[in-house]
Amino acid sequence: MKKVAIIMGSDSDLPIVTPAIKQLKDLGIESEVRVMSAHRTPEAAHDFSKNAIANGFGVIIAAAGMAAHLGGVLAASTTLPVIGIPCSAKVLDGMDAMLATVMMPPGIPVATVGVNAAKNAALLAAEILAVGDDELMQKLIAMRDDMAKQVVEKDKALQEKIKEI
Amino acid sequence: MKKVAIIMGSDSDLPIVTPAIKQLKDLGIESEVRVMSAHRTPEAAHDFSKNAIANGFGVIIAAAGMAAHLGGVLAASTTLPVIGIPCSAKVLDGMDAMLATVMMPPGIPVATVGVNAAKNAALLAAEILAVGDDELMQKLIAMRDDMAKQVVEKDKALQEKIKEI
Amino acid sequence: MKKVAIIMGSDSDLPIVTPAIKQLKDLGIESEVRVMSAHRTPEAAHDFSKNAIANGFGVIIAAAGMAAHLGGVLAASTTLPVIGIPCSAKVLDGMDAMLATVMMPPGIPVATVGVNAAKNAALLAAEILAVGDDELMQKLIAMRDDMAKQVVEKDKALQEKIKEI
Amino acid sequence: MKKVAIIMGSDSDLPIVTPAIKQLKDLGIESEVRVMSAHRTPEAAHDFSKNAIANGFGVIIAAAGMAAHLGGVLAASTTLPVIGIPCSAKVLDGMDAMLATVMMPPGIPVATVGVNAAKNAALLAAEILAVGDDELMQKLIAMRDDMAKQVVEKDKALQEKIKEI
Amino acid sequence: MKKVAIIMGSDSDLPIVTPAIKQLKDLGIESEVRVMSAHRTPEAAHDFSKNAIANGFGVIIAAAGMAAHLGGVLAASTTLPVIGIPCSAKVLDGMDAMLATVMMPPGIPVATVGVNAAKNAALLAAEILAVGDDELMQKLIAMRDDMAKQVVEKDKALQEKIKEI
Amino acid sequence: MKKVAIIMGSDSDLPIVTPAIKQLKDLGIESEVRVMSAHRTPEAAHDFSKNAIANGFGVIIAAAGMAAHLGGVLAASTTLPVIGIPCSAKVLDGMDAMLATVMMPPGIPVATVGVNAAKNAALLAAEILAVGDDELMQKLIAMRDDMAKQVVEKDKALQEKIKEI
Amino acid sequence: MKKVAIIMGSDSDLPIVTPAIKQLKDLGIESEVRVMSAHRTPEAAHDFSKNAIANGFGVIIAAAGMAAHLGGVLAASTTLPVIGIPCSAKVLDGMDAMLATVMMPPGIPVATVGVNAAKNAALLAAEILAVGDDELMQKLIAMRDDMAKQVVEKDKALQEKIKEI
Amino acid sequence: MKKVAIIMGSDSDLPIVTPAIKQLKDLGIESEVRVMSAHRTPEAAHDFSKNAIANGFGVIIAAAGMAAHLGGVLAASTTLPVIGIPCSAKVLDGMDAMLATVMMPPGIPVATVGVNAAKNAALLAAEILAVGDDELMQKLIAMRDDMAKQVVEKDKALQEKIKEI
Repeated sequence: MKKVAIIMGSDSDLPIVTPAIKQLKDLGIESEVRVMSAHRTPEAAHDFSKNAIANGFGVIIAAAGMAAHLGGVLAASTTLPVIGIPCSAKVLDGMDAMLATVMMPPGIPVATVGVNAAKNAALLAAEILAVGDDELMQKLIAMRDDMAKQVVEKDKALQEKIKEI
Repeated sequence: MKKVAIIMGSDSDLPIVTPAIKQLKDLGIESEVRVMSAHRTPEAAHDFSKNAIANGFGVIIAAAGMAAHLGGVLAASTTLPVIGIPCSAKVLDGMDAMLATVMMPPGIPVATVGVNAAKNAALLAAEILAVGDDELMQKLIAMRDDMAKQVVEKDKALQEKIKEI
Repeated sequence: MKKVAIIMGSDSDLPIVTPAIKQLKDLGIESEVRVMSAHRTPEAAHDFSKNAIANGFGVIIAAAGMAAHLGGVLAASTTLPVIGIPCSAKVLDGMDAMLATVMMPPGIPVATVGVNAAKNAALLAAEILAVGDDELMQKLIAMRDDMAKQVVEKDKALQEKIKEI
Repeated sequence: MKKVAIIMGSDSDLPIVTPAIKQLKDLGIESEVRVMSAHRTPEAAHDFSKNAIANGFGVIIAAAGMAAHLGGVLAASTTLPVIGIPCSAKVLDGMDAMLATVMMPPGIPVATVGVNAAKNAALLAAEILAVGDDELMQKLIAMRDDMAKQVVEKDKALQEKIKEI
Repeated sequence: MKKVAIIMGSDSDLPIVTPAIKQLKDLGIESEVRVMSAHRTPEAAHDFSKNAIANGFGVIIAAAGMAAHLGGVLAASTTLPVIGIPCSAKVLDGMDAMLATVMMPPGIPVATVGVNAAKNAALLAAEILAVGDDELMQKLIAMRDDMAKQVVEKDKALQEKIKEI
Repeated sequence: MKKVAIIMGSDSDLPIVTPAIKQLKDLGIESEVRVMSAHRTPEAAHDFSKNAIANGFGVIIAAAGMAAHLGGVLAASTTLPVIGIPCSAKVLDGMDAMLATVMMPPGIPVATVGVNAAKNAALLAAEILAVGDDELMQKLIAMRDDMAKQVVEKDKALQEKIKEI
Repeated sequence: MKKVAIIMGSDSDLPIVTPAIKQLKDLGIESEVRVMSAHRTPEAAHDFSKNAIANGFGVIIAAAGMAAHLGGVLAASTTLPVIGIPCSAKVLDGMDAMLATVMMPPGIPVATVGVNAAKNAALLAAEILAVGDDELMQKLIAMRDDMAKQVVEKDKALQEKIKEI
Repeated sequence: MKKVAIIMGSDSDLPIVTPAIKQLKDLGIESEVRVMSAHRTPEAAHDFSKNAIANGFGVIIAAAGMAAHLGGVLAASTTLPVIGIPCSAKVLDGMDAMLATVMMPPGIPVATVGVNAAKNAALLAAEILAVGDDELMQKLIAMRDDMAKQVVEKDKALQEKIKEI
């Protein structure tokens, strides 16, 4: 199975990105986690992206905040699907990062997920790999069933809680 | 090769979606284009999505405006990658559709592209299919080279134009 | 009297929804409170909504955050009035949920109240039921009188407080 | 059957409101259409609202733009359900009217629909009246079936159109 | 000298409004501080405003949050200058209150100051009264001189502080 | 009676400002209309403002777009009430001008009206002058009565129009 | 004197950029105008920027729309001042481009001007070059004097125009 | 070498501005730090700016929040490059200050950096001075190399951290 690269623009983004790392591990998908900056190490980012196919990656996840160029910069140097996680910073609630990630010009898409939505980025990466991997697809389907069951259980548990209201 | 489904919430979205249809055709990717509404035909949308894997689809593209639930509703019933195109309506410049598409809860991602960015949705679908299809990946790489060449040519042409300024 | 359904997208929304539960109780209106997710249990949500009239409901209240599709998904499967409470999440102050709730396409309205405005959702539900129930309408009118009296009392109490400024 | 009041803040809002008038007529619901201003004729608005129950109204629809206080002002003087239509003006795409309509304080809800969404306001009014009127509820259910059929027909028609792309 | 009325929509707004009360006191301007609600006590608000000229008021300050109608409702019933203070609530940073206060329709202005800017509301009220009161105008001019001097002193003090950086 | 100054940041703002000029004329208030720029002629703006009281002005209206500093710059050099009209430019619908006008720091208020709301700026100026001028106050009260009558007439005229719907 | 580079992300931005080209010409500053894309020709952009100092450039102006990465990408590869012009596209009024240009992470500044503000970008470039060039600084000072004179003339001309109002 | 002026609108902005003071010191650039207010000491600000060239300044940095006019007011009185730092205040996350700083009218640019981005303002000032100062330019280039090395080191350190996830 192809690997997933998780690139963050700054190591301070690790708490945001951690759920993606865990989710991929839980699904048995190999990932490589890196700090690379669109602005501070542009050549490293470019090289990583350019060689990503050759190095066995199937999807790249990019997490960055503010004028979040990381997803776009990586997407510019590969035809692998690039998933962008807009990270929230001290101000603006991640709207700057979201617009800088999602509003890509024609020709170079970045598959954007919600603000700080690292778990969803990992699941989207898994869905992409699962298009050509039936076993992984079955895992994802099973996971959805589990999620549904949890909702049903929470619904039951709620009936107790609301008696006290 | 797996097919791409292009679902639009209303047939009035056809002009926005057309570049996606053309782009997939140009890349030799089979697509099925449908009108289905998260609100007016929820069961049809649900059924389509639930059976999409079995019916040979690899990716679903959903184009919708306003409180754009279509991408989320389709994603809720499949583990295929779902790409959302937020469409702009008469007011709000597509910000309503973008937030309603991208801010999905944990567990159910929608890969969101820019407002009205149908061409990028098609390219993202192609990139996803190309993860398991080297021939398609080569086409995408060649396309990128073409895009770069066009920029270089436009750069040259510009030198003439600016003489008149 | 018909019942009011209060559906929340996640059990973590219970603190937001609690004032609605209390308000309905205070007015003597029977409610059923449920956790159902537009994305994780779409079929359960659909079924609940489809059978809501037959099951004796008169109004449905839906509370959800982020790309809040719950109100729209429930409204798509019933002709009962559906009231949407946009819930605020960690970022964006509920503007994502508000736009995803209120900007419904023609044909499927969702009666939207303010961000986290659970009490108002309950009162709106009560007003709707009171259209055909004079006794309930009298209760609501009495409640308004009480509210006005409280303002008058607070106005009086203020005159003491401001002496210390 | 109770009547629906449609109040607009200015007669220049008539083009926006017209779909609501037509929709109610189509459903056989009697409406009274008025120009009243929260700011220019506050007493008239207050009196209308205060006497609305006695005058046989079941729902009030208020359409206003900019600092749209009309819905709130009417809601302040009645316990009937008040539906607010935020109208877009020359700038701000109706976001001013939406926030001025939907963000009501606890105690006085306004059931807000989308920007300029007059048709949905009328349907919501009909849904409210239908809670106590089975015949009207059946009309609304039939209308939904028609809407679904139209989507299916548009889906079929689309298959022809896309052949030319 | 005419009095200034300070009306707040809820007594919970007192901490926001307090700087206005103090500022008017410091300038020797008599004020009357009241809790009145555009929505819960609309008639009281209307009556207060209608009689404000007769009761010796020269300016009305209205402080309210969310769908802040108070300024507009008071302005609708008087031709005295009405100053609106948009108050921030738990979400949206006061942008809802600002738009609901400032975007008044032609004919009924509300003089809007910044979010929570109670001190500026008081100063604006004083400036208005000072148009016909030279003594008060001299006080305001003196106050400006003091403000300028404070900036100059802070500038000097800063030179010490920055030595430690 | 004191005069009103209407200062615009650029002569291209004249169409926006014209309703203010007309409104003041209709009320018999003398105005002086000037082009002065906070950025291009800061000293002229400063001098005008500094001498405004001595030159017989009672109120200053400032109309400017984009980073609209004109109101603030004029207010910084006078204790006369300064009314700011945020003007919309080619982008951003006047939100830049509104925030740059209304969010003044403590000490220097600008009485802000809605985007492009020149008529309301003139009426606010008139209300300010009327605090010390009973005759003008009577004119304003009469004008309100006229406005109310016009609404009543439009309400009547509407009853004819809607018969055709 | 050092040259100014004007890089645009797409040749369709030429109409927006033209005032910058003209302004530099008027000031006798040599410029080189190029089309280079952060996404389609990232290596060309990188190389241009990396060699800009050696090639005699003193300032780089970057004009781009949507997720406008061009300024940031060029700034990442040079320590020359980079000026960013956020260009407006079909939706969002340039707010996406502004946030993607201005919200740069610590270490890599982009000097951002207003939406589509090409003339100001050129003037800022000239001001930067003028820091070490007294002759150019004198030209800029003279230009400011001209600007002030034009305002004064427009102010005079206005006095005629307003007589007709 | 020319000096850099750092002007803040209020001494409460010192914590935001401190990184700029430090950064300039680290680069051996002399700075003068001042409190001056566009609104409270407009003449001082004007005079400072007017004499800045004569007093040996090469760049002016202006830090201000809310309706942040300081950058524009300083830029209006000098042809030196003026860098604006929009500061965030209690509400609105600095968007008011950003728009009031960046959206300058044609003729008077302000080089805007991100919200609270004092370090970047200092680096931009250094880049501007370095256009005519090779030694400073070499320092900036060396600093970029350091920054890149830090990212590489953080990338290595990350590999240890993620083992524990």
